Amino acid sequence: MGGTEGANAANGTSGVSNGGANFRSSPYQPVGDFLSNVGSFKIIESTLREGEQFANAYFDTETKIKIAKALDAFGVDYIELTSPAASEQSRRDCEAICKLGLKAKILTHVRCDMRDAKLAVETGVDGLDVVIGTSSFLREHSHGKDMAYIEKTAIEVIEYIKSKGLEVRFSSEDSFRSDLVDLLSLYRAVDKVGVNRVGIADTVGCATPRQVYDLVRTLRGVVSCDIETHFHNDTGCSIANAYCALEAGATHIDTSVLGIGERNGITPLGGLLARMVVTSPEYVKNKYKLHMLKEIEDMVAEAVEVNTPFNNPITGFCAFTHKAGIHAKAILNNPSTYEILNPADFGLTRYVHFASRLTGWNAVKTRVGQLGLEMTDEQVKEVTAKIKALADVRPIAIDDADSIIRGFHLSLHKQDGPAPPVEVRNGEPVELSNGQ
Amino acid sequence: MGGTEGANAANGTSGVSNGGANFRSSPYQPVGDFLSNVGSFKIIESTLREGEQFANAYFDTETKIKIAKALDAFGVDYIELTSPAASEQSRRDCEAICKLGLKAKILTHVRCDMRDAKLAVETGVDGLDVVIGTSSFLREHSHGKDMAYIEKTAIEVIEYIKSKGLEVRFSSEDSFRSDLVDLLSLYRAVDKVGVNRVGIADTVGCATPRQVYDLVRTLRGVVSCDIETHFHNDTGCSIANAYCALEAGATHIDTSVLGIGERNGITPLGGLLARMVVTSPEYVKNKYKLHMLKEIEDMVAEAVEVNTPFNNPITGFCAFTHKAGIHAKAILNNPSTYEILNPADFGLTRYVHFASRLTGWNAVKTRVGQLGLEMTDEQVKEVTAKIKALADVRPIAIDDADSIIRGFHLSLHKQDGPAPPVEVRNGEPVELSNGQ
Repeated sequence: MGGTEGANAANGTSGVSNGGANFRSSPYQPVGDFLSNVGSFKIIESTLREGEQFANAYFDTETKIKIAKALDAFGVDYIELTSPAASEQSRRDCEAICKLGLKAKILTHVRCDMRDAKLAVETGVDGLDVVIGTSSFLREHSHGKDMAYIEKTAIEVIEYIKSKGLEVRFSSEDSFRSDLVDLLSLYRAVDKVGVNRVGIADTVGCATPRQVYDLVRTLRGVVSCDIETHFHNDTGCSIANAYCALEAGATHIDTSVLGIGERNGITPLGGLLARMVVTSPEYVKNKYKLHMLKEIEDMVAEAVEVNTPFNNPITGFCAFTHKAGIHAKAILNNPSTYEILNPADFGLTRYVHFASRLTGWNAVKTRVGQLGLEMTDEQVKEVTAKIKALADVRPIAIDDADSIIRGFHLSLHKQDGPAPPVEVRNGEPVELSNGQ
Repeated sequence: MGGTEGANAANGTSGVSNGGANFRSSPYQPVGDFLSNVGSFKIIESTLREGEQFANAYFDTETKIKIAKALDAFGVDYIELTSPAASEQSRRDCEAICKLGLKAKILTHVRCDMRDAKLAVETGVDGLDVVIGTSSFLREHSHGKDMAYIEKTAIEVIEYIKSKGLEVRFSSEDSFRSDLVDLLSLYRAVDKVGVNRVGIADTVGCATPRQVYDLVRTLRGVVSCDIETHFHNDTGCSIANAYCALEAGATHIDTSVLGIGERNGITPLGGLLARMVVTSPEYVKNKYKLHMLKEIEDMVAEAVEVNTPFNNPITGFCAFTHKAGIHAKAILNNPSTYEILNPADFGLTRYVHFASRLTGWNAVKTRVGQLGLEMTDEQVKEVTAKIKALADVRPIAIDDADSIIRGFHLSLHKQDGPAPPVEVRNGEPVELSNGQ
């Protein structure tokens, strides 16, 4: 596989799927941009490498195989595994996953070191992701090597891996705190010896979106191979940085399920796809089995013993819950008013909240219909006021609101005089006699 | 207060605190940029407005007051409250918070409607955040008004609020799906009648960082008043979008604690400060009581009955945990190698993981020292291999690793022959006789 193939193919199709139907009315819809790969990116899924560096992660062989199979079925392009040099079991697991015959290519992530590379080649992987620190911080405090030594070693390791017929990526670590000229010289040198991808890594999570765009765009002019990017999430920008990298011509994005990794992790698979499905709906929906996302996230969350964050993109419990009155009213008219993502694309459903002090009568009207009751708009407004009055006093559940609606409806069909007082017993409204 | 004052003062100081010591080695350090406000932004904290639209939020008066006082002590510039038109209790709570005499200015968020504005003015707030939907989606499916009507009503409402001596912001809703020319015409018109701030709102969470930069930068050339921005997080870009807005000249950012709000919420207060403290350390550390962050997040998490996400910026349980061998080694030499945030700034501590198959001997060496034991490097490497061997078989806890270290250390001080077998009892290693 030639190093330039991916980049060119990717660039050629980039403008086409930008935007899509959701953006017709936006003056800021991206125009055709031949640099951008937002409509043609590839995912290197690193839950079984970066994710294993998450504080709570301990994946036994069975769990690794289950996760690898699920990611493969989901449609990721690559699955990256922990270096076989990390431990004997890591080596054996790497071999076992290579033997599964998955569609996704299997990579392992190794230090820029001939011993590690040889060990990795023998496991049967499709490619090696080679990494070395290039920032002054890491050169001083980690491996202690200078740039000339790094370049020489990199070329040796790359040529060895290529001689074995495998794919090879060469990445710096902490790229955004490395000297730009050193970095570009190094990438140019490895591009010349035929590396498949060069990698930009925001190892400490310091990069900002426009920095990312500038660096990747500069690099795009220096190398002809593919460009992979890896963003940590310490400052909450990992999804946006990945997006800007694609806009600037990057071809591959590293992800992990729920973003697990060192510290608070990297670009999450689900979050990246939330971003990309809005920009490039056809590409994302045709390529990835989006309805599997929740199942895969649940599998990994269970394996590392965490809860899916309440505000997780797409699968957070309230990602499609609408509460304020004006939101609920518009959503009921047309979901596109307050939803850029369609929950059905992920096998999920929308929920319009109608049991709070912020409830509007349009949401209550819909609920009245769901309960099979009939009321005029004036009556719905009256019962909405009752729901809001109770919600002003204490938190109320759907059952409470339903009871008020049913009780009010009951009272409408009593002749003469004011509605009798209603109390909730066993979740059902019960009419009280005056004596009680 | 003049509308232009904030913008000019903010712009004037912007280049100064950009970057800081952390970035000295980066070629991508922002150079002096007179458009940027990354070193002089203001926070409009909307936990008590946007946050109240979160599915699980029910704040009683006492809780609202507690949160408002904590945010004020933390140092936010503004506290935004639910519209008094939402419910009678909302109105009373608004009055109660205005009477607390906080340093932060109190705002309430109202529809662009004279009745709502009048109700709000009577509560004693310092200012009103006025909002109306301007996208074709909202104009068609929500309020059904045209742009001429919107502009006329906006000017009436703004002039009324100003006549009462209060601050006023005018914002569109769903700005990124609104017609650009309509939007700019409207903002120019309200700027002319002396609005204090105009607001850009990504109501559906569709905006991308470079779109945000372009729109805010364009707007910066059209109005002389301050620019407030509000970003939903549906596609995981709310922090990055806020950052890019500041780079383009925005002056105010809307946040909520843990990002709570409609659907999966908006720019989180903690996440925004994680981003900004890296870029503008002096400004952020001098202005905000960062060590209060965890306490405030815990308070809100408890009030809305959610857990702090495992990967929350700064306060996620593993945000400062280092696990992989090469990371741990470098961190022990110099924390800046793999940390862009200093946990001490937030009253938190770093943790180097030394109980996994990815453990390196440098982390174990540090632990040996913490346990008050003495070993040569060769001995540390030997005990590291034992820890990794056990971690290859099952997940191990700190206690397990400590037991292995202590047991190994014990064996070193036995004369002759191999180390006796060691078993863990009550958390302490116990040497076994051969008979057991």
